[in-house]
Amino acid sequence: MTIRSSTKFLPRLAHARNEMRALSLDALVVTHLPNIRYLTGFSGSAGIVVLTGDRCGLVVDFRYVTAARACLGSDPDLKDAVELVVPPESYDETLIARLRATGAHRIGIEAAWMSVSRFNRLSAGLAAASLTPLVPSEACPVLVPTERVIERARLIKDDQEIATLREAARRLAAAAAEVPAFVRPGRTEVEIAGDIEALLRRVGFEKPAFETIVASGPNSARPHARPGGRLLQPGDGVVLDFGGVYDGYCVDLSRTVQVGDGRPEFRRMFEAVAEAQKAAIAAVRPGVTASQVDAAARGVLARHGLAEAFGHGTGHGLGLEVHEEPRVGRLSSGLVDTPLEPGMVFTIEPGAYVDGVGGVRIEDDVLVTASGCEVLTRPGTQHVAGEASGG
Amino acid sequence: MTIRSSTKFLPRLAHARNEMRALSLDALVVTHLPNIRYLTGFSGSAGIVVLTGDRCGLVVDFRYVTAARACLGSDPDLKDAVELVVPPESYDETLIARLRATGAHRIGIEAAWMSVSRFNRLSAGLAAASLTPLVPSEACPVLVPTERVIERARLIKDDQEIATLREAARRLAAAAAEVPAFVRPGRTEVEIAGDIEALLRRVGFEKPAFETIVASGPNSARPHARPGGRLLQPGDGVVLDFGGVYDGYCVDLSRTVQVGDGRPEFRRMFEAVAEAQKAAIAAVRPGVTASQVDAAARGVLARHGLAEAFGHGTGHGLGLEVHEEPRVGRLSSGLVDTPLEPGMVFTIEPGAYVDGVGGVRIEDDVLVTASGCEVLTRPGTQHVAGEASGG
Repeated sequence: MTIRSSTKFLPRLAHARNEMRALSLDALVVTHLPNIRYLTGFSGSAGIVVLTGDRCGLVVDFRYVTAARACLGSDPDLKDAVELVVPPESYDETLIARLRATGAHRIGIEAAWMSVSRFNRLSAGLAAASLTPLVPSEACPVLVPTERVIERARLIKDDQEIATLREAARRLAAAAAEVPAFVRPGRTEVEIAGDIEALLRRVGFEKPAFETIVASGPNSARPHARPGGRLLQPGDGVVLDFGGVYDGYCVDLSRTVQVGDGRPEFRRMFEAVAEAQKAAIAAVRPGVTASQVDAAARGVLARHGLAEAFGHGTGHGLGLEVHEEPRVGRLSSGLVDTPLEPGMVFTIEPGAYVDGVGGVRIEDDVLVTASGCEVLTRPGTQHVAGEASGG
Repeated sequence: MTIRSSTKFLPRLAHARNEMRALSLDALVVTHLPNIRYLTGFSGSAGIVVLTGDRCGLVVDFRYVTAARACLGSDPDLKDAVELVVPPESYDETLIARLRATGAHRIGIEAAWMSVSRFNRLSAGLAAASLTPLVPSEACPVLVPTERVIERARLIKDDQEIATLREAARRLAAAAAEVPAFVRPGRTEVEIAGDIEALLRRVGFEKPAFETIVASGPNSARPHARPGGRLLQPGDGVVLDFGGVYDGYCVDLSRTVQVGDGRPEFRRMFEAVAEAQKAAIAAVRPGVTASQVDAAARGVLARHGLAEAFGHGTGHGLGLEVHEEPRVGRLSSGLVDTPLEPGMVFTIEPGAYVDGVGGVRIEDDVLVTASGCEVLTRPGTQHVAGEASGG
């Protein structure tokens, strides 16, 4: 009755335990939901994973017991490796009791995803519990802020993840081919956004990966405009940015189309952005850093006098989240700069936005390969770094 | 050219400053986006408000400058009260520089919404900055965790918010009347969810307030089931839970319908949940606490032997977020128990879930009035507490 999976979860749990050892942690509390899904397959909207050297507890509340049981039951190895815990009272009280029962002293938490409130509440709870220690000499456990323990593993997609992302991108590309037909004078941005989201479901996505952007005419100069009631007019440039979630994995794509004949300055901006995207894609290969890919796009736009018009980063990682690592942006922006490795998947989406002219953004999703990249949203397109010239 | 609003924002800023004084804070850093929208109207996906006794800075990045300028420009008083700041580098660096320039020593942060990472990063940045103090005697500023400073104000809706929520609920109720027609044997849950979301847009919602739930047959026993490919069958009970965002405000509604004739045990469960909802609505009035409303629903279900079948809370507040205060749940669940006041808006959604029988949930949205409540999702329904009997 159960489907025997290739048990992708066991290597992930083993990796997390290796990281714990490196950080001298007795336990790791995972609260970021995409990380929980990565480790156990559980995809509810609440839950906690408590990992120790020899046990893994998945704490879920009443609402998700049936779903969590089905999730663990679908994989015999996972069922042995992960224990389901239903909190009798609040999550935090259950967590404190469980941590105490494990005897863990150094307890890692995900600092990027735990609020100051919860950190303080858990610290106080652990301190209160240690006033009546189970063992007289027991010291009060400490919460150790950790960064990117699970995220670092998620950066490199495994074969199953790559297959899922490739299929998702193929479907998104197929949808994108139909989208220009939606863009006609007299229609509103919200109508077009509705059409795109219905199309995403039709081609097999569970849901949109984010709020679809349809930004027309002057609105296109705002990189994150929300679709509104504006009627499209001849001559408008229209930025369309949409994505979908397929088997839990997110893909993301932007196209800029014109309604009828566009103005020459808009056309020039479009060509510059297309050239910048080409240059960035050509720069992708193992060993190059994410900021170098960003610099490739930025350099082209600067040569066209559009340095100031490109205010956002060149791209972001894709996976269980629609914005994850690697961040492809300027070194100066304070982001972690990631050296690229095969198996990383991210967007390449340079843009230019000028009030009075409009905006252009062109976005595709790439997979880093041994020699360059595969453009997932343009199926069949392989880039060997250096072969395609960017400028 | 600009629309003169009734400047709802100035009293909100004044309230926040009163709270700051009560907590002896020189500055308050607001990072929770719904709170930023509440204070300034700005609704982008990133931003920070830095409030001091005499200044209010809205920090937004490149992507949102045009939108933020339009937002502040729509209200002359707001334009005077709020200063737009575009970070030259990262948000955190800009924030540290700005906090330092204000000379603030006790700086409140929203502990429920700030990550441990950011707290530590800001603390370290402020400490580093104070190594070269602007004034020689200057002590290192401290970040003070605060709880619910803006949320407490948001609990009581003002007249504009009530008008918006009333209109939103009226539209949602109109949509709900059409939904049973979607529920037919041979259709899938995802098809029905797609129909509901298209309908939500058609009746004027910006977007769904959350992922629409269509849970049929055995799936209905999972309170948070996601719509899947299951074909509806005669005899199925189907839980439909959906909501929309209207002018930024969220409303939420559930109905349980049957496909053809249902089984008697399902019918009995339905009647019990309906009775529990009626009892909870009848319990709503100023001075009663949220947990007493929960107890009213829970008592009815217990009398029907369904105490164990009702594992979630009775309701949650509605406003700029689809889950906000007040939380209507058990005292023992560790939630803040809120004494009800006129102007609070929340859901009443008892349910019962039994494996092998199915699930039932019935949800409406209520506004606390001087004498009881108004059921917003059943327009025209006023309840004077005590008049409607719950069981």
